[in-house]
Amino acid sequence: MNKKQVRVGMVGYKFMGKAHSHAFRDLPFYFDTEAVPVLQAIAGRDAAGVREAAEKMGWASWETDWRRLIERDDIDLIAIVTPNNTHAEIAIAAAQAGKHVICEKPLALTVGQALHMLEAVKKAGVVHMVCHNYRLGVFEATRSSRGNRAGNRFEINGEKGSIRWDMENLNHLQVYLEEDEPGLQGFRTISCTEVEHPFAAAYWPAGHIIGYEHTFINLLAEMMNGISTGVSPSPNFEDGVRNQIVLEAVEQSVQTGQWVKLPEYTGNLPSFKEQSMR
Amino acid sequence: MNKKQVRVGMVGYKFMGKAHSHAFRDLPFYFDTEAVPVLQAIAGRDAAGVREAAEKMGWASWETDWRRLIERDDIDLIAIVTPNNTHAEIAIAAAQAGKHVICEKPLALTVGQALHMLEAVKKAGVVHMVCHNYRLGVFEATRSSRGNRAGNRFEINGEKGSIRWDMENLNHLQVYLEEDEPGLQGFRTISCTEVEHPFAAAYWPAGHIIGYEHTFINLLAEMMNGISTGVSPSPNFEDGVRNQIVLEAVEQSVQTGQWVKLPEYTGNLPSFKEQSMR
Amino acid sequence: MNKKQVRVGMVGYKFMGKAHSHAFRDLPFYFDTEAVPVLQAIAGRDAAGVREAAEKMGWASWETDWRRLIERDDIDLIAIVTPNNTHAEIAIAAAQAGKHVICEKPLALTVGQALHMLEAVKKAGVVHMVCHNYRLGVFEATRSSRGNRAGNRFEINGEKGSIRWDMENLNHLQVYLEEDEPGLQGFRTISCTEVEHPFAAAYWPAGHIIGYEHTFINLLAEMMNGISTGVSPSPNFEDGVRNQIVLEAVEQSVQTGQWVKLPEYTGNLPSFKEQSMR
Amino acid sequence: MNKKQVRVGMVGYKFMGKAHSHAFRDLPFYFDTEAVPVLQAIAGRDAAGVREAAEKMGWASWETDWRRLIERDDIDLIAIVTPNNTHAEIAIAAAQAGKHVICEKPLALTVGQALHMLEAVKKAGVVHMVCHNYRLGVFEATRSSRGNRAGNRFEINGEKGSIRWDMENLNHLQVYLEEDEPGLQGFRTISCTEVEHPFAAAYWPAGHIIGYEHTFINLLAEMMNGISTGVSPSPNFEDGVRNQIVLEAVEQSVQTGQWVKLPEYTGNLPSFKEQSMR
Repeated sequence: MNKKQVRVGMVGYKFMGKAHSHAFRDLPFYFDTEAVPVLQAIAGRDAAGVREAAEKMGWASWETDWRRLIERDDIDLIAIVTPNNTHAEIAIAAAQAGKHVICEKPLALTVGQALHMLEAVKKAGVVHMVCHNYRLGVFEATRSSRGNRAGNRFEINGEKGSIRWDMENLNHLQVYLEEDEPGLQGFRTISCTEVEHPFAAAYWPAGHIIGYEHTFINLLAEMMNGISTGVSPSPNFEDGVRNQIVLEAVEQSVQTGQWVKLPEYTGNLPSFKEQSMR
Repeated sequence: MNKKQVRVGMVGYKFMGKAHSHAFRDLPFYFDTEAVPVLQAIAGRDAAGVREAAEKMGWASWETDWRRLIERDDIDLIAIVTPNNTHAEIAIAAAQAGKHVICEKPLALTVGQALHMLEAVKKAGVVHMVCHNYRLGVFEATRSSRGNRAGNRFEINGEKGSIRWDMENLNHLQVYLEEDEPGLQGFRTISCTEVEHPFAAAYWPAGHIIGYEHTFINLLAEMMNGISTGVSPSPNFEDGVRNQIVLEAVEQSVQTGQWVKLPEYTGNLPSFKEQSMR
Repeated sequence: MNKKQVRVGMVGYKFMGKAHSHAFRDLPFYFDTEAVPVLQAIAGRDAAGVREAAEKMGWASWETDWRRLIERDDIDLIAIVTPNNTHAEIAIAAAQAGKHVICEKPLALTVGQALHMLEAVKKAGVVHMVCHNYRLGVFEATRSSRGNRAGNRFEINGEKGSIRWDMENLNHLQVYLEEDEPGLQGFRTISCTEVEHPFAAAYWPAGHIIGYEHTFINLLAEMMNGISTGVSPSPNFEDGVRNQIVLEAVEQSVQTGQWVKLPEYTGNLPSFKEQSMR
Repeated sequence: MNKKQVRVGMVGYKFMGKAHSHAFRDLPFYFDTEAVPVLQAIAGRDAAGVREAAEKMGWASWETDWRRLIERDDIDLIAIVTPNNTHAEIAIAAAQAGKHVICEKPLALTVGQALHMLEAVKKAGVVHMVCHNYRLGVFEATRSSRGNRAGNRFEINGEKGSIRWDMENLNHLQVYLEEDEPGLQGFRTISCTEVEHPFAAAYWPAGHIIGYEHTFINLLAEMMNGISTGVSPSPNFEDGVRNQIVLEAVEQSVQTGQWVKLPEYTGNLPSFKEQSMR
């Protein structure tokens, strides 16, 4: 019981706040991480709303100003689950105050913002992470079709095979391997509840599926390990920058109707800024 | 915050103990029941094992003798998650001590045992429930095939339609309705994450699936409501008796190779005992 | 047995030729049309190849020049299953010779070609049809992924519902209806082998599926009915023109990276030509 | 074109008659067998019905008495597609007349009948076959459920893996292999339209499915090869006898409610008869 306590301050308390709060609570039940989260404080602008959320979801205290939350000495990690346009300001302030930062996706609104955020966490030497809880950066498509509710599906076709995944059936992966014997080739329906799969051993026996909320528990377990070791787990703010480069290119391509060549980010931040900033 | 506290004492702490502990913990996060569980004490014979389980799963105290647990004044509800051959003795003792009882399935080993258990809870006037967390009493079949992991599937064909369900895809129900327009008939894949479905509103938006463990949370929410209102929720020990009648008939049929006529249990316990007991 | 004999002359004898030959042969076995096809002659440039194909597939005679085929008095219908760049010349010559014409998709290479073809069949007053055997003009996508063999799938999402179809499972249609009762909404897997579905009654009892080749038999049954009644069945050369307009717009959009406004074809051919021709 | 002509006489002309007639017609289109069927004559008791069937399905002549059909010199093969209770008498008479015999399943009503049939074809030295067109002797189950139309599905679980098949999706096989790498195990959906699969090369490119009727074409292609080589293809009357042993045991078990020990048939007919006949 000499576990390192990581005192969490969370900014935001709506839908994503519920998912993260639950994950912080349940994490120690499933994972035996060296660092364990403490639900220290939650921040939101509406006093009545944030107080009720704190009580309902088990947070020890609450604030109505995220700047006050960041100033508090009894907070080690800032979790940002607010609207996208506020991510940069909060994350940079948190890093400057020496807090670890975990931020919902997408990291920022522009590549420029994302670079500033990355500079801030690097300069402060804090651990940072972006919440790609599906680990594959799924496009949130086909929301317009009611028959496909959450409608997060993807299919990747490569040289050696193909993968399909559907969020409404998130415990299974469809895998096609080009190297399978002819006559026995076909998509396999693989249950990711088998112990060979990442995170599966923390939960139930094979065949007993987990749900949407566990994707957050897995994510936060990685973050706790990152805080223990001092190494920002993947996907972190570097990945967030790369992701932002793609998003910005998509936007630009839609506007111009032209192919867009992506600037290359190799991890050398000053060089990249010089090359790419507009 | 003037919620009624239901202090739980759980007997057993292995696989089922983990599922129940988690469900007691998470219940208030999802459901706004008037009675809320408190993880008061857990009992198991191995001191080291039960202490570690208590710490890991968040129980306030532990016992190595279930009789001591039942004697404690600070326990309101006994949860029985031990092997089947111990259910009857523990449940009867708990009822006699005035505790509410929730018991894992199957309720007992024989119809006779189940009837004694039912008599005990009725005499004591306590609330009772059996843990059919899938609500449909699925047969646990095809365990021998590794390709079908948990292998809990059923199909029911009736006059007005058919239903199929598979535990590895537990958020979906396949429904066929005879009354559908000809040419448009077919099995529908229905997502039970829609708010119209029982329990769904407590969790996430439609399309965001829940897992195996939530079946226990739903079950315990019903039990908390039962304790608030004083009415044993379904399935309770009466249902457990009926279930036992079927199980005993199956066993008898396998042994004799003959059809077995089921004795009818209409809720009149003394009359049934006279008629059926062997 | 006083059926009208439609003497067919087919140009081309490879893969599509096999599918059409089979369909002409099998048509009378399944459909009781008033006009029935006679496999009169097949044309191809390679004498050895076309002779072998004629024998194997049951054609009464063969030619090595399609112009000779069209000149023959004992031919009523020309079936064009040659490469796309030859469709226009053959179809126009056939129409001028007073033959009915059925042509593989896409009708032509350009809108201009398609319009000339349409003018020719209209002027000649012959019956014409384009071979959209899946009736929905499926895009032939994802051919690059070996896991998806034929890889013809589509999904259409509309205001009142959605439809999904996969060529590898062509007897089933996935249908989602917005008007279904909440809680019972979901994609239905509908077997199109039920008698309520078009063409199904001609084949086997419900649940006994048909294959790829039957899509051609259905198509040719429509063509035989068209020849009996003198009305060109849908999709005919008018639809082929509309299709060509879309294809040309796609091509133009890819080249320019811009949205393309489609010229409207209302069935008034001279007016459309004036408006759209480049 | 020096192919051996096999002149077929078919007894019966209803649903199964349609499937067999079509298969005899289409066989040469797909398979390049050395022996090819000729649709010589069809027999049925109702003159008007059998004549119409002969015309519709392309038979050269018809009879109203199957005994006359068997006596004809211009018949080489008798195809029996009549009700089960007539199989034995017709098959034995056909064999005695020196005709090859192909018979719908189940071969007979009793093991005794089946043995007499087997003796007859062996004594006559003719080629014989039973029409298990799905090759796996599927049980025709769940007919009572309208949601499952044809309702022929099976699942076989063995030591090294599992197989699932559904007649409504007959081009695909679900295969699970125990030896697959852990973490990549799962049922594969295999398209049997790939050329590696039996009979697939005779039809269309991979991904272009075949239908119910092609199972009969495959079967008859095997029969034609059997007639060419003089070797009865599998499944033949020997397999029919084994099948009958199982069916009879099932019936006996249902009646007695007891397990039944199967008599062993090793191919030694006289020894088996001595041992098993009642």
